[in-house]
Amino acid sequence: MMKIKSRFKDYTVEFVDSLEEWEILAEVADTFFVIDRKVYGLYQDKLPQLPQERLFLMEADENKKNMDTVLAICEEMTGMAAKRNTHLVSMGGGIVQDITGFVAANLYRGIRWTFYPTTLLASCDSCIGGKSSLNYKGFKNLLGSFYPPDVIRIYPQFFHTLSPIDYCSGLGEVVKFNVIAGEDGIERIEHDIDSILTHDYDKLQQYIDTSLMFKKKFIEEDEFDKGVRILLNFAHTFGHAFEVSSSYGIPHGSAVALGMVAANYVSVKRGFIAESYAKKIEAVCHKILTNIDMQSEWFDKEVIISAIRKDKKQTNKDITAVLIQKDHSLGVYRDVTVEEVIESVDYISGIVLGVR
Amino acid sequence: MMKIKSRFKDYTVEFVDSLEEWEILAEVADTFFVIDRKVYGLYQDKLPQLPQERLFLMEADENKKNMDTVLAICEEMTGMAAKRNTHLVSMGGGIVQDITGFVAANLYRGIRWTFYPTTLLASCDSCIGGKSSLNYKGFKNLLGSFYPPDVIRIYPQFFHTLSPIDYCSGLGEVVKFNVIAGEDGIERIEHDIDSILTHDYDKLQQYIDTSLMFKKKFIEEDEFDKGVRILLNFAHTFGHAFEVSSSYGIPHGSAVALGMVAANYVSVKRGFIAESYAKKIEAVCHKILTNIDMQSEWFDKEVIISAIRKDKKQTNKDITAVLIQKDHSLGVYRDVTVEEVIESVDYISGIVLGVR
Repeated sequence: MMKIKSRFKDYTVEFVDSLEEWEILAEVADTFFVIDRKVYGLYQDKLPQLPQERLFLMEADENKKNMDTVLAICEEMTGMAAKRNTHLVSMGGGIVQDITGFVAANLYRGIRWTFYPTTLLASCDSCIGGKSSLNYKGFKNLLGSFYPPDVIRIYPQFFHTLSPIDYCSGLGEVVKFNVIAGEDGIERIEHDIDSILTHDYDKLQQYIDTSLMFKKKFIEEDEFDKGVRILLNFAHTFGHAFEVSSSYGIPHGSAVALGMVAANYVSVKRGFIAESYAKKIEAVCHKILTNIDMQSEWFDKEVIISAIRKDKKQTNKDITAVLIQKDHSLGVYRDVTVEEVIESVDYISGIVLGVR
Repeated sequence: MMKIKSRFKDYTVEFVDSLEEWEILAEVADTFFVIDRKVYGLYQDKLPQLPQERLFLMEADENKKNMDTVLAICEEMTGMAAKRNTHLVSMGGGIVQDITGFVAANLYRGIRWTFYPTTLLASCDSCIGGKSSLNYKGFKNLLGSFYPPDVIRIYPQFFHTLSPIDYCSGLGEVVKFNVIAGEDGIERIEHDIDSILTHDYDKLQQYIDTSLMFKKKFIEEDEFDKGVRILLNFAHTFGHAFEVSSSYGIPHGSAVALGMVAANYVSVKRGFIAESYAKKIEAVCHKILTNIDMQSEWFDKEVIISAIRKDKKQTNKDITAVLIQKDHSLGVYRDVTVEEVIESVDYISGIVLGVR
């Protein structure tokens, strides 16, 4: 069991072998369930009968990640007697986490929350750290706050039913943590990526564990993302933009993999890292990107630059990005130019559209 | 200057002699202003010209304390280049505080916020502690979180233009802090209430300062309201219900004054305190309630009990209330009966409707 320190409350992450504990949860009148409708369909036979008045099934679509869904859940929860003692239990990927994290933080000024991540992305990364995000009109993740679950339970069986696209997307963040770890991390993932891609679930679970252990240090030191935690944002400046420019055709983790290649292009250009170092990382990223049918219109430079500008982390005229530096550690650069972005997008589109 | 420790960031409260510092604020491009429209009308000549695209004037009505207003402000703020560096500056009473506190907590996962309270209620009580509240449909304060301002600046000149109703309402919380402080506190406020009511502003400022000092201890120990902070909720179980039952005809602080009398009725009935002790408190409360034109329909027992049941602090079948105990300290009682509530409402309505 992993324990994580937080300003709100210390919390835990644990792998579980079964969902039997849901029998007990279902019987407690103060518990409200929010579940990804698709997951519910796939795992209903492993779950007890859940009372309809305490169950909210949601579509895990990016366009449902908004205040309307939050308010719909809150409204259903007002029907319960428990109020501040309410226990929210949610099961799903990052979108379900974002929605229910926002509800847990803001209903009755904060309620107890247990989260069962069902995607690789949520399990290896977002389930800890307490961030929630809602889209508002054209603005991705405009609204949100910090509020971790009280308990996170990872049931690895879920990974067996992930689509190849979602499986590979999750690996994007796993690769990122290993790249951040430096040369050793890159060599480890280089060595293991093929067996993970061919579903060595034991190995996968080890990588989830080490990813969370790695992230834990950053979030415990800087829970509110004012300092060192920004380094975890490596590859995300470009990554977010690729998500937007592809209208989410490129899922988050895959966009992060692309973002790593883009950021490393800038690092090579600036003479921070050797081309060979970047190529090693690129090769791993490439392996997890092969099953996405990339479209040329997703790499429209104007759209990408405008998406970067809308990112809440962008506080300057020049573009801010985390880059791998000369000693292979990460640094925040607030002087990335539009020209550098254009060149790296050219490079990326060359690779993924098969021109190179 | 008072410093307050918080899990988010330590923050300060200071009295200021003028609003000259707004000249500087207005010139900084990353600053966005939210101001109570009425306050803006009254004090516009003391403020610099504020850029229209960075100014949001709002009606401080209870029915504007909702997500629509929050989202309208966020939408205007997306027009600014600064994003996470944005500085939100708000000026108004509790409603402006609730709305802008929610915005500050949830836009870009938390931005810098300076608050200028303009009412007595906000200045002596709500400006510290970090609570925000939004109404949703029929549910008062259903949504909200904890997020304090970075800086609170109290400009006492504002109190000179408060309506008699708002002035007396603010005194409700001042009286409450002195009642909580015990016999000495009650005697102090008993001695000074007449001069405060006749606008001895120096004395008033002292009372604001001591109220905040008193509250500081509770919120520093229990920022997230899971323990000792509940004692500050003395008189609020009844108070909130009177606000609802009068459709906010009784303003918050006045409702708290009524709530003290109601809670003390239960304490006397239970033999916790002498009737003479309750009467002393009642006499002070009575002085600050005289200018409200009380309506008999505001004391409908069914409406009051249903409002209490909807309160998020109510977690049991019986009613929870904070009561003055035998040693004159406060205690949380989770066993207050509907009969006790009915009797105390009868007692209250007898007093304020002039039957007694």
